[in-house]
Amino acid sequence: MKIESVDFFYLSMSEVLDIGDGSQDSTLVRVRGGGLEGWGECEASPLPTIASYVCPMSHSACKPVKWAVEGMPLNRVEDIYQITRRVHENCFDLLQSDHTLSGIDIALWDLFGKYAQEPVYKLIGYNKAFPKLPYASQLFGDTPELTFEKAKASRHAGYKAVKFGWGPIGKAGAKTDGDHFRAAREGLGNDLYLMIDIGTVWNEDSDTARQRLDSLKEVNTYWLEEPFANMALGPYKALSVAKPNVPLAAGEGCNNYVQAAAMLDFAGLKYIQIDTGRIGGITSAKRAADHAVRKNITYVNHTFTSHLALSASIQPYAGLEKDIICEYPVEPKSLALDITLNKILPDADGMVRVPDQPGLGMEIDKSRLMEYLVNVEIKVRDEVIYRTPDLLS
Amino acid sequence: MKIESVDFFYLSMSEVLDIGDGSQDSTLVRVRGGGLEGWGECEASPLPTIASYVCPMSHSACKPVKWAVEGMPLNRVEDIYQITRRVHENCFDLLQSDHTLSGIDIALWDLFGKYAQEPVYKLIGYNKAFPKLPYASQLFGDTPELTFEKAKASRHAGYKAVKFGWGPIGKAGAKTDGDHFRAAREGLGNDLYLMIDIGTVWNEDSDTARQRLDSLKEVNTYWLEEPFANMALGPYKALSVAKPNVPLAAGEGCNNYVQAAAMLDFAGLKYIQIDTGRIGGITSAKRAADHAVRKNITYVNHTFTSHLALSASIQPYAGLEKDIICEYPVEPKSLALDITLNKILPDADGMVRVPDQPGLGMEIDKSRLMEYLVNVEIKVRDEVIYRTPDLLS
Repeated sequence: MKIESVDFFYLSMSEVLDIGDGSQDSTLVRVRGGGLEGWGECEASPLPTIASYVCPMSHSACKPVKWAVEGMPLNRVEDIYQITRRVHENCFDLLQSDHTLSGIDIALWDLFGKYAQEPVYKLIGYNKAFPKLPYASQLFGDTPELTFEKAKASRHAGYKAVKFGWGPIGKAGAKTDGDHFRAAREGLGNDLYLMIDIGTVWNEDSDTARQRLDSLKEVNTYWLEEPFANMALGPYKALSVAKPNVPLAAGEGCNNYVQAAAMLDFAGLKYIQIDTGRIGGITSAKRAADHAVRKNITYVNHTFTSHLALSASIQPYAGLEKDIICEYPVEPKSLALDITLNKILPDADGMVRVPDQPGLGMEIDKSRLMEYLVNVEIKVRDEVIYRTPDLLS
Repeated sequence: MKIESVDFFYLSMSEVLDIGDGSQDSTLVRVRGGGLEGWGECEASPLPTIASYVCPMSHSACKPVKWAVEGMPLNRVEDIYQITRRVHENCFDLLQSDHTLSGIDIALWDLFGKYAQEPVYKLIGYNKAFPKLPYASQLFGDTPELTFEKAKASRHAGYKAVKFGWGPIGKAGAKTDGDHFRAAREGLGNDLYLMIDIGTVWNEDSDTARQRLDSLKEVNTYWLEEPFANMALGPYKALSVAKPNVPLAAGEGCNNYVQAAAMLDFAGLKYIQIDTGRIGGITSAKRAADHAVRKNITYVNHTFTSHLALSASIQPYAGLEKDIICEYPVEPKSLALDITLNKILPDADGMVRVPDQPGLGMEIDKSRLMEYLVNVEIKVRDEVIYRTPDLLS
């Protein structure tokens, strides 16, 4: 078969708040070929992503992403790998293109899995999908008291691992940060995994980070996530050898495999966190997972939105038995929940698994999504080069 | 004063060819404040860049670039640095934003220089602008014979340094590559600097690169540029210690300072090439230049388009006396030449200097540009959020 059409849909809550919650809008991608359709999601700003798909060519290495995708053959797994190579060769001066590729690549795997009647994790080389332990991923409270309440609620909801991130952290001094860390630990109790996510607010400042190491050690954080900007290899490396030792996690900002490889090779990480919706999709995420295995670094998915994105994010390390920790969006907006009819839910043991169904195993709730659809029209030289496609067709 | 308006203009040749020539279109930025205007250029795909400036917010770290810029104060140099921090804090999940920031930052320095009546290189901390030796930057010929003719023509045109890149290189085996390298050297003669640019076509494959080291050494290349993808630190490091030793140059793809720092710290480079129109503008380029000085790595500008971009690209290392090599676009399209009324031309000694004028010292030829202006209109939810502004107003 051939890639017959690629359609981008901009979905959004009616109100988008200035908070660290990436589930408030979505860039959904539908790919069709051979009478089937596959779905993917870019973890990306919708409008620039759409623009990067349809824009006019600037030069041979700055073409619209569609140039590298539409009409291409899709008869074997190798054809999907070839799309990534074509995008990198033809669009590498178009910065947004890796985010755009992500949703397309995910949709291609979903489509090809339906065609081949195999789940994606098998197509990318795993024999078995192992259960993963979901951690609840949530924002710090505005005060330590609210953080404590949120932690207690997560414990009561049955989570065995909880990550707190963003919100006030890193903005009001070491003491306040420490109060939040301790509040989270006290609310969870000592038997749960606690992860701490700084959301890059310390930029490249390893001294500020060092001042928090004692309190991070005191609450026995499972990892310290993104203290610095993505690719700030020097500061990461310096903190990785500082005392007391706190395991570092990072990588969600990597927008291609070579960046992930650089982080794996040089940053001193214990955990690499890959967002399949940003790194270029399942193809590039699997390469990062293979590299992580070689470096003995634990792979963790990064995801914060829909269960379509969740399924896509687990496939690249579904077959890595020892890498059990799994990000799981615990308080997404209704849009993210409404994207799929089915959900990936914890079993009686509190574990989640990718669906043992063809492709990503998720069914899109198209009619439900109509209320979130944002109409977009882009004209260049008075010609319409993008208009929101028909979601229900 | 305040940043009163930021306007993006999409300019293009009427026909854009599928060749490695980035001068075929342009993303021009005009910033106004205090009755003055500054101009900058993003080395970026125009439509996604515009979209990233005006798009709706997705969440707190994925805002439109305009959110971080418009209405901000501009009374001192620190206010410009603050814009970069605001963009990184508020737009870091919007991948295109660094390319977008580049043109804005350049225009802010131009504007502030006009306000302060100082050239930009002085505002960023240099006392003096040293002369630079321009190298002619051109594409390899389609055959070794054509490469030879181009090299001979460059010698006759008076250049003392010539770089060949892209075109057929890396696509037809080590022998053909070697024939092109030798043809370039023979056409130039032994007394000129010759640089070779692979344009990343070897991706991460250091074995392929190693097979060319003998012929690169034979032609005494001054540097080997971008054999691998940007940020492919492992392959760069491996090649940097291979024999025979050929000096490596890279970095044009870095879209922020931390990436440039990673390349400087871990890639084994002898030359770091920074595109001011991609790295986030003069602010981030100067940070990279300072870091290069600390690492004893030579800074070189990367630029391939207008003389506005050329002036912006030299400012960050204008005061580094020993770093004399300067990329100089030798065969740009008419659009790139028509952007400015004045040009930066080699003096009697064949050297170029940044203009000793306020700001970037370049005057925009607005009326001339009308023939290149591409009208764009973007509607979201039936509301026009971008329409090409009036260039002549």
